[in-house]
Amino acid sequence: MRVTAKAHTNIALIKYWGKRNEKLILPTNSSLSLTLDGFYTVTTTEFRDDLSKDVFILNGKEVEGEAYERVSSYLDLIRSYSKTERYAHIDSTNEVPTAAGFASSASGFAALAASATKALGLQLDDKELSILTRQGSGSACRSIYGGFVEWQMGEKEDGSDSYGVPIASENYWDVRMAGVVLTAKTKKVSSRSGMKRTVDTSPYYSGWLASVPNDLENIKEAIREKDFEKLGSIAESNCLKMHATTLAANPPFTYWLDSTVRVMHAVQQLREEGIPAYFTIDAGPNVKVLYLPESEAKVAAALKSIPDVTDVILSKPGPGITYL
Amino acid sequence: MRVTAKAHTNIALIKYWGKRNEKLILPTNSSLSLTLDGFYTVTTTEFRDDLSKDVFILNGKEVEGEAYERVSSYLDLIRSYSKTERYAHIDSTNEVPTAAGFASSASGFAALAASATKALGLQLDDKELSILTRQGSGSACRSIYGGFVEWQMGEKEDGSDSYGVPIASENYWDVRMAGVVLTAKTKKVSSRSGMKRTVDTSPYYSGWLASVPNDLENIKEAIREKDFEKLGSIAESNCLKMHATTLAANPPFTYWLDSTVRVMHAVQQLREEGIPAYFTIDAGPNVKVLYLPESEAKVAAALKSIPDVTDVILSKPGPGITYL
Repeated sequence: MRVTAKAHTNIALIKYWGKRNEKLILPTNSSLSLTLDGFYTVTTTEFRDDLSKDVFILNGKEVEGEAYERVSSYLDLIRSYSKTERYAHIDSTNEVPTAAGFASSASGFAALAASATKALGLQLDDKELSILTRQGSGSACRSIYGGFVEWQMGEKEDGSDSYGVPIASENYWDVRMAGVVLTAKTKKVSSRSGMKRTVDTSPYYSGWLASVPNDLENIKEAIREKDFEKLGSIAESNCLKMHATTLAANPPFTYWLDSTVRVMHAVQQLREEGIPAYFTIDAGPNVKVLYLPESEAKVAAALKSIPDVTDVILSKPGPGITYL
Repeated sequence: MRVTAKAHTNIALIKYWGKRNEKLILPTNSSLSLTLDGFYTVTTTEFRDDLSKDVFILNGKEVEGEAYERVSSYLDLIRSYSKTERYAHIDSTNEVPTAAGFASSASGFAALAASATKALGLQLDDKELSILTRQGSGSACRSIYGGFVEWQMGEKEDGSDSYGVPIASENYWDVRMAGVVLTAKTKKVSSRSGMKRTVDTSPYYSGWLASVPNDLENIKEAIREKDFEKLGSIAESNCLKMHATTLAANPPFTYWLDSTVRVMHAVQQLREEGIPAYFTIDAGPNVKVLYLPESEAKVAAALKSIPDVTDVILSKPGPGITYL
């Protein structure tokens, strides 16, 4: 059976920053994200008798090396849930500009898990799918759902209580996000190793963990109340706290460029001019900006005018997994 | 009696960041600084019978308002140690470009305390002078001494064990510092209020306090061993930790501009090119860069070539209080 699934990427407003179990990808804190409409991966999976190994096509090109190994060993995990020994043919298209710093691994692993499990005839509910997806890429477990999603960290050692849960606001809340793309430079510290170094060495990491539950409680309240200023200010301060932990790591590091800080100040300047806008930054230099639909023109124009900003990509909230 | 004293400013390599007693200016952690040759204040004090209030002349102009009140109430403290009720005539010259972010209050209060106490005939030793100076401006207590100076935080409630102590390396160690002046913008959060907000609200503040004793021990070892890489990397990481605490404050804030981060990356780039250089940043956007005499030309050229750098001011280690 050939199955095609589409998954959208998500951006964390309360950051996932640290693993308590590297193999099962269990986090040290719960996180919360917004799934985005503009950025997604479409993946078609078929398990076939005529293959002597997995084949992974990404954007029309066969992938080899480390990325292939990661996908293939993830397929081993999925195969372990069924009786099959057949290899898979994966054809994946990423509608995520990787340069934008929108994590393509979130939509990528969500689409892969959804299409591969369905291709094998496995009957997983959303929770089971989220748990399985988490083991491919942690933040991907949030992309099973649309809109605002909490990844509940769970407590169990086997990870069976660590998965995404949609946060319903009473009806659709159109909070927008702009991806601000900066002049690309190579990242010196990967998000994976930066996270680990921070957990292992930062004297601020315990303060981070202690402060997240309160941020999470408050941002869920903001979503229920549709209080944009509250949502944005919690997201911005949570992001700053996450990045602050890296400055205290040993050796210290930062994902920020000068232009990252320039965008941060520009967003704060927008607020001083009465336009509600808040930033968040993942483990990289690019900035994402939260705003409301009525501010879109002004926010986009202001961001585009900043030196070293090469692109500004606007997005609405997106849906969860769909099958095509 | 007219007495003229000269005091040099100092830059902290282990930061003073938080007060446990606002009135006596008692710190929550010990700190360590380098006194600089290039930046100083010369102050002449005379207590006179013909004055009906204190007179404070700074760089040839009579000072009024908040700065005057701060000096005058500090003179009240000094007067309380003698029998005099006479007012003082203070004539002060600041050879500290305030735009450079070299704290002029350190040299200012050190020169004032030294000249005023001597003008009253008080016989204070260096330790007593440091304690008195501390009550004018905390970091000024380090400017009593030249070279590397530790401000021991002390434990007593009356502050009698909170003062500067020189850290002797066996002989003079010529570690240089460049003050990198950036395009001036108004500081949104003063160092005094930023320090207080951090102490009161940052979940990382306890981690900061817990990590300082180790930094201090290690940097004193580096001074004893004249190990420049060790000195510089501890100073840089301690500075990043201090600034990280502000990102986690409520509301969060930063003293950094985009150009601050640009200079930080340029200094790290210098190291990648084999030139030992390390930065430190106080509660403001400007950057100070530690380097060795043999790298001076290269460091100065690299720093001057950075966009938005308006000036680069080089300095050697400076002496303690002198009387002219």
